[in-house]
Amino acid sequence: MSSNNNILIAQGGGPTNVINQSLAGIIINEKKEKSKILGSINGVNGIVNNNFITLNNILSKEITTLRNTPGAALGSTRDKPDQKYCEEIYNVLKKKKINKFYYIGGNDSSDSLRIISQYSIQKGYNLQCIHVPKTIDNDLVYNDHTPGFGSAAKYVAQLFSGINFDVRSLPGVYIGVVMGRHAGFLTASSSLLRSKGSDGPHLIFIPEFSFNIKEFINNINSVFNKYGRCVVAVSEGIKDKNNILYSKKIQSSNEYDDHGNIQLSGSGMLGDFLANEVKKKLKISRVRADTLGYSQRCFLGSASEIDQKEAFEIGLKAVSFSNMHRDSFSIGIEERKIFSQKYKVKFIVNKLTNIAGKTKIMPVKFYNFKKFDVTKNFLNYCKPLIGKKFPQTASII
Amino acid sequence: MSSNNNILIAQGGGPTNVINQSLAGIIINEKKEKSKILGSINGVNGIVNNNFITLNNILSKEITTLRNTPGAALGSTRDKPDQKYCEEIYNVLKKKKINKFYYIGGNDSSDSLRIISQYSIQKGYNLQCIHVPKTIDNDLVYNDHTPGFGSAAKYVAQLFSGINFDVRSLPGVYIGVVMGRHAGFLTASSSLLRSKGSDGPHLIFIPEFSFNIKEFINNINSVFNKYGRCVVAVSEGIKDKNNILYSKKIQSSNEYDDHGNIQLSGSGMLGDFLANEVKKKLKISRVRADTLGYSQRCFLGSASEIDQKEAFEIGLKAVSFSNMHRDSFSIGIEERKIFSQKYKVKFIVNKLTNIAGKTKIMPVKFYNFKKFDVTKNFLNYCKPLIGKKFPQTASII
Repeated sequence: MSSNNNILIAQGGGPTNVINQSLAGIIINEKKEKSKILGSINGVNGIVNNNFITLNNILSKEITTLRNTPGAALGSTRDKPDQKYCEEIYNVLKKKKINKFYYIGGNDSSDSLRIISQYSIQKGYNLQCIHVPKTIDNDLVYNDHTPGFGSAAKYVAQLFSGINFDVRSLPGVYIGVVMGRHAGFLTASSSLLRSKGSDGPHLIFIPEFSFNIKEFINNINSVFNKYGRCVVAVSEGIKDKNNILYSKKIQSSNEYDDHGNIQLSGSGMLGDFLANEVKKKLKISRVRADTLGYSQRCFLGSASEIDQKEAFEIGLKAVSFSNMHRDSFSIGIEERKIFSQKYKVKFIVNKLTNIAGKTKIMPVKFYNFKKFDVTKNFLNYCKPLIGKKFPQTASII
Repeated sequence: MSSNNNILIAQGGGPTNVINQSLAGIIINEKKEKSKILGSINGVNGIVNNNFITLNNILSKEITTLRNTPGAALGSTRDKPDQKYCEEIYNVLKKKKINKFYYIGGNDSSDSLRIISQYSIQKGYNLQCIHVPKTIDNDLVYNDHTPGFGSAAKYVAQLFSGINFDVRSLPGVYIGVVMGRHAGFLTASSSLLRSKGSDGPHLIFIPEFSFNIKEFINNINSVFNKYGRCVVAVSEGIKDKNNILYSKKIQSSNEYDDHGNIQLSGSGMLGDFLANEVKKKLKISRVRADTLGYSQRCFLGSASEIDQKEAFEIGLKAVSFSNMHRDSFSIGIEERKIFSQKYKVKFIVNKLTNIAGKTKIMPVKFYNFKKFDVTKNFLNYCKPLIGKKFPQTASII
C-alpha cells in the first residue's frame, strides 16, 4: 500500500545550483504516491539530532520557486557517518517507521548511504536507500555526468569567456583557479565558450596530470610571446609528480574536513603563489590570479537549462524507479560512448556499491597533455550540458 | 559639413560588460553623419603608436554582436598622458585631421582627455573632446550613476544571493571581497537581492568608513550567534583610521599602476587575512573568503538590461550632443534627488573640468555605519539599475 509509505529526504555534501530541482522532483512524485514525506535538516546530521520537517504541505508554487533557488533547501552536512553514527541513524529511522530514504548527494554522501543501507540489512529492517547524485565535480563512476555539473561548468565557461575579452583589452597573464579536487572536468569547462583560435583559456591544468611549475612557466611564456597575453585555467587540485597536492606544498597550516579532505577552496593562496612565480620568472608586469570560489556552485541565475531539467527529472525518476526495484540503488545517467551524436539523456539504476566512495576522473581521450588543452571529444561531450543561453560575442582587433 | 568629419574613438581604463554598447552607439550615429570613423587600439596608447583601425566598414550584424561582448573591443590602456605624451597625441590627431575625439572611460581617462583638450586649445587646434563615461566603481561626480556599474552591481548581487543560500546550507562565515578602491557602491550592491531579514550579506564594509578589525570580528560574532552563520561583503579598498589601505598594511610588496594606484585585485591576500583573523579570534571552524576578481566587470551573460540600454544610448547621445555643443564635454546621467520615485534616466552635458580626476563616494544617506549595512535609500537608488532578469528564490528552513 503506497499510502503507508513513510519517506525521508536529505541533502548532503557541497550544494549545487540545481540540487533543489531533485528535491522538488522527489516531493512531487512522492506526493502523488500519497506518502508521508519528511525532510531531514542538514543531511544525516538532522537524523541523529532528530531535526525534521514535514514536506507534504509545501505549495506547488513554493516548489516551483524552490527549484530555481541555489543551495540545499533542507540544509547540508559534511558529516561522514561511522558505524556508531549509522546505528543512531538506524534507530531513528526505525522509530519513525521510515521505509524509503532518499539522499541527494555526491561521492561521500553515497558512501554514507551504502553504510546505512548495509547496516539496515544486517539488522533486518526493511529500508530502501536511494542515492540521487549531485556534484559539481562530475566525478561519479558509471554516470555520463552528474546533475549540478552542467550549471557549474556553465558558470566557469561564462567567466572565462568574459575574462578572455577582458584580457584582450588589457593584455597580461590571467590565472583562474577552478574547483575540483581530483577530477578536471570543471577546470576543462573553462574552454567551452571559446570561438576563435586565439581565444583563452590558452592553457588548462587538471589534477589528472602531474603539475610541473617549470613547464607551467614555459608554456605561459610561449603563449604570451605568440598572442601578447595568456589566460590559464588551473585546477585547485593540481599535484606534483609525487602526487602531492600543490596547495599542500605551499601552505604551512591546512584545514581538513571530516572526510579527511584538505580545504582547497576559500583561500587565494594557490593562485597568488602561481602569479608570483610567473611575475618573478617571466618579468611580465601584468599578472593576475583569481580563485573562482564558491560562486561556481551557487551563482544565482547561471544554472544551465539542461542541468535544471535533468536534475528535476532524476528526482521524479528516483521515485518511479524505487517503486520498480525493492533494493537500495543509485540512480544515474547512462554513459555515452560517442560524443558527436545528438545529445540525449537516459536514466539508469546503478548498484550503490558500484558508486560509493569511487572517483571518476577525466578520461585520456578528453585531454591533450602535450598541449595542456582539452580535446574535441571533450568539447562534444560537454557542450550540450551547459545549454544554449549565452549572448553571441565578437572581437574586432 | 558633416561629411568632412574625421572622428576618432578610443576606450580607456578597466573594461566593463557594456563598454562596447557605447562604442556601438557612437559608431551607429557617426555613420549616419557620414563621418570617417577611426578607432585607436588600446586607448591613447594607440594614438601615439599610430595604431588605428577604420570602423566604417563594420557590418550592422557585427555591431549587434559586439554590443553583447564584454571587454573593450578596441583594447584599453592604463597609460596616463603627461604633457609630452599629450603633445604626441596632438601631433598625431592634427596630422590625421581628427576634429572629434570620443574617449570612453572613467575617472582617469576623463583626466587624460582634459589634458589633451586643454593642450589643443593652447595650440589653437580645433578639436572637440568628448568623454563618454564608464566605470564599474560608479565614482564619477555629477552623475547619478555610470554605465558599467549596473552590470557589475548585478553580478555582485547575483553572487551574494547564491552565496546566501550556499551558506544557509553549510553554515559558517563567508567573506566576499568586492572591487572598489575609493567608493563602496559595488560592495553595497551585494545587498540588492536579499529578500528575508535573515538573508546575507549581514554585514557590509565600505572604503568610506574606517575599518576596525576588532569591530569587524565583534560584529561577525553577533551575527553568527544570532543566525548560526554570517555572510560579509568587504570592499578591497577598506582603510584604517589613519586612512591607510588595509591591503597595504598586510602586504610586504605591492604593485602600482601608471596612475600610482596600488594593485588591489588579482590577489586573494586581504580575504585570506580577514578569514584567518576570524578563525583565530572566534574559533569558528568553517570560515571562507573569496576575492570576487575580474569577473565582476566581464562575466558573460550577466549584463543588466538597463545598463546595456543606457550604455548604448549614451553613445548615441554623445554624437547628437556633440553636434549641438562646440566645446569639449563629458556626457552624463542627471542625478536623481528622490530615489523612491519611478526610475527614469536623463542624459546631460557636464564640463570636462568638473568630472576629470574627481571621485564620488557613497553619500552618507546610503549607509548605516552603526549597522554596517546599506539604507533603504541605497536600495531604492540602486535596485532599478540591475534590471529584473533574476529567478525568484525561496527557502524552507
